Amino acid sequence: MPEITILTEQELRQCAAVDAGAVEIVSDAFSRLARGGVQMPPVMRLDVAEHNGEVDVKTAYVPGFDGFAIKVSPGFFDNPKLGLASVNGLMILHDSRTGVVRAVMLDNGYLTDVRTAAAGAVAARHLAPERVGTAAVLGAGVQARLQLKALTLVRPVERAVIWARDGEKARACAGELADELGIPVEAAADARTAVEQAQAVITTTPAGSPILHWDWLQPGTHVTCMGSDADSKNEVAPAVLANADGLVVDSRSQCAAMGELHHAIAQGALPADIQPAELGQVINGELPGRQAADEVTVADLTGTGVQDTAIAVRAERRATELGLGTRVQA
Amino acid sequence: MPEITILTEQELRQCAAVDAGAVEIVSDAFSRLARGGVQMPPVMRLDVAEHNGEVDVKTAYVPGFDGFAIKVSPGFFDNPKLGLASVNGLMILHDSRTGVVRAVMLDNGYLTDVRTAAAGAVAARHLAPERVGTAAVLGAGVQARLQLKALTLVRPVERAVIWARDGEKARACAGELADELGIPVEAAADARTAVEQAQAVITTTPAGSPILHWDWLQPGTHVTCMGSDADSKNEVAPAVLANADGLVVDSRSQCAAMGELHHAIAQGALPADIQPAELGQVINGELPGRQAADEVTVADLTGTGVQDTAIAVRAERRATELGLGTRVQA
Repeated sequence: MPEITILTEQELRQCAAVDAGAVEIVSDAFSRLARGGVQMPPVMRLDVAEHNGEVDVKTAYVPGFDGFAIKVSPGFFDNPKLGLASVNGLMILHDSRTGVVRAVMLDNGYLTDVRTAAAGAVAARHLAPERVGTAAVLGAGVQARLQLKALTLVRPVERAVIWARDGEKARACAGELADELGIPVEAAADARTAVEQAQAVITTTPAGSPILHWDWLQPGTHVTCMGSDADSKNEVAPAVLANADGLVVDSRSQCAAMGELHHAIAQGALPADIQPAELGQVINGELPGRQAADEVTVADLTGTGVQDTAIAVRAERRATELGLGTRVQA
Repeated sequence: MPEITILTEQELRQCAAVDAGAVEIVSDAFSRLARGGVQMPPVMRLDVAEHNGEVDVKTAYVPGFDGFAIKVSPGFFDNPKLGLASVNGLMILHDSRTGVVRAVMLDNGYLTDVRTAAAGAVAARHLAPERVGTAAVLGAGVQARLQLKALTLVRPVERAVIWARDGEKARACAGELADELGIPVEAAADARTAVEQAQAVITTTPAGSPILHWDWLQPGTHVTCMGSDADSKNEVAPAVLANADGLVVDSRSQCAAMGELHHAIAQGALPADIQPAELGQVINGELPGRQAADEVTVADLTGTGVQDTAIAVRAERRATELGLGTRVQA
């Protein structure tokens, strides 16, 4: 019988964070995705309409990684009325060679937060301008915080502005980020004001209609859109993707099905057969990232199974180093 | 933070078995599947060709059940060379109303064995003749044992014969079953001999080409085929399905994709648009089961997510009653 390590969220918070290690392993995973041999089946989706819930299951086998993750992400949107978080879930880490379950990571979505922010850092490393005087973050949730932190790992960021529909939340988020990152962070009164002063823009909302428009963007700006992970979500006007000098996606098939790319194609702003660069191709130098200082670049990130596998492998390694987790004889 | 119960295979063997309770809850799940409202997405399949492995993920939300399972089943077929079982895996039980993980069941495939056998009993209850003088089982693995046991829960079985390609295994299996069930069980020299004397036939092999043929079957016989759970598997000649007086499937869409039905359609023995009865429709009395003593009936079982949800719900209930499992603060 195999021995399995059970890791709780509290333990996993000691094993994975938005740091250089997470960025490196997620970058490595995207690089391998572009090199081929990765198996990443379409997302499995279970709808539980009678309780306003859904469950997504993602996985990817990445050659060269000694484990692969299966991630189960329930989102039940009436939970806050019951005093529970909307999102919870776990990751299962299997041995790549034998399929045997090595670890059950009861992360309540924490590892997803980390790997999502890490992908933002990877995109920014290849696409953001060298100097980010001001970063604008649209949204004031967990990803607003983690994406700005991730950006500071790959670019010196002098100051940031946060916009959210709820001004109170934007101010609270700005205050926390100023404390954590040690740079000036302010709340902006409207999205346009925030975006017009920025060299890096990150959209992190669940918006169903665009909150970012093309004519707000200054030459030389990089935009990362990471809020859209379902076909009903749409943060960015199609013109932003259509007019950008460089467009990079995490996964062509996923972005065409559920990302900003999906809406740009559906609205006729981009042809249905467009083949934007994938992040891994840019990492591998196969296709260019930013080519000139005045380019506007866009990264459309929907979140992929290779990131889940990467962060789970890293978390397991750290758990072993730190001696964390409960061993169970399955 | 939710509290999660971790259950090991050893504990789960105390919580679920091929017994009347398992048969009832699996029957109830099929009944609900036929009544509508069940969400059962297509099986997610991850191929790990470089290690001769695959992972299937199944799930179903069943209205009226207070939990739903997500089952992860890896099969890595070089594992025996390493001294490991080919199949392992686990089930995750989520709360139906909130999606919160309630239990992680580290069953190494045990619960699948139980719910698969239970479905055989449900099919036999509606399709097998009242009296089974002889039951023939093709195959000598775990399901050969459990399916014969399941049949004895719903029909008096006077004796049984076991055939397997490996005669040694067939004899060992027959000996064990005779001891366990207290009826004469013998190994048969060939499949035809076994089938020709039987009123109930159960095929439980991973055969890739038919091991059961139409002209071997006596009038009044019921056949349950449960070995085929992938499009490459095929235990039963298409004529068996085409000539049967009654054909029942666990899930039309799954059987048309990966069951015996798939092969019968592919080889032109049945029309592509055939709508065989689903097991739940027969349970609900919406469509008939066996209608006459001399009919030949066939049940094509591929294994469905509703069975997984049913057995996981039952195992959790029993674990609570027995006070089994380790509680973890996730």
